[in-house]
Amino acid sequence: MAKITKINHIAILVSDLESPLNFWRDALGLELTQVEEVPGEQARIAFLPTGDSEIELVQPTTEDSGLARYLDKRGPGMHHICLEVDDIDGMLAQLKEKGIQLINEVAKVGSDGRRYAFVHPKSASGVMVELYELAK
Amino acid sequence: MAKITKINHIAILVSDLESPLNFWRDALGLELTQVEEVPGEQARIAFLPTGDSEIELVQPTTEDSGLARYLDKRGPGMHHICLEVDDIDGMLAQLKEKGIQLINEVAKVGSDGRRYAFVHPKSASGVMVELYELAK
Repeated sequence: MAKITKINHIAILVSDLESPLNFWRDALGLELTQVEEVPGEQARIAFLPTGDSEIELVQPTTEDSGLARYLDKRGPGMHHICLEVDDIDGMLAQLKEKGIQLINEVAKVGSDGRRYAFVHPKSASGVMVELYELAK
Repeated sequence: MAKITKINHIAILVSDLESPLNFWRDALGLELTQVEEVPGEQARIAFLPTGDSEIELVQPTTEDSGLARYLDKRGPGMHHICLEVDDIDGMLAQLKEKGIQLINEVAKVGSDGRRYAFVHPKSASGVMVELYELAK
């Protein structure tokens, strides 16, 4: 049986990176290790490791992406949580068998080789859940 | 300077515990270690350790608490994230100095001796952030 190993990250949607960094980095003292442009998601992401996980601040860089529309509609706040899994194909099969609604029935592959898929919030207590299997 | 050491837990607000457990426990395979009645918060909480952190499912047990009103208004979903801190008094002083708006300016004490306080979502990118200093 495929297993969840940890919380990989918590993604927080923001309209700009500067003012949130006042809180997460300057006041809380989390380290900002990287800011990455992710054209595939039309976003800029700030990474702040937190224990064995990360907090990610996600800023949409265009006005017509799904992220930008979500931000327009709801304002800044939690967007999704990402759980790391040892075998994403096994996990997706296991979720389908239990009748869980998936956004991605087959794992997608990121530029760094990690494989990921989203579970639909309808099946996950209203939470957008991402699953990651890191590249080996 | 006080330091955040890890994500202690992610709290998800639900209207009942049974149907969410179909996903978090039975489909994802997380272990349910405990279900606790927390009269002080008018809630029942299911604890599911996830790596070095926990996912908590929080079900309001009355109809007039802040949690129940939040659930009525927004439906099930993410409620707050909790960060562990090595020195909560130092952290609260540090946050005040940076102009961060706090819900609790002085740490409260839980029944198990842990000390906690909430940061106002206005100062935290729309996210409700709880801080914990565990009992020593």
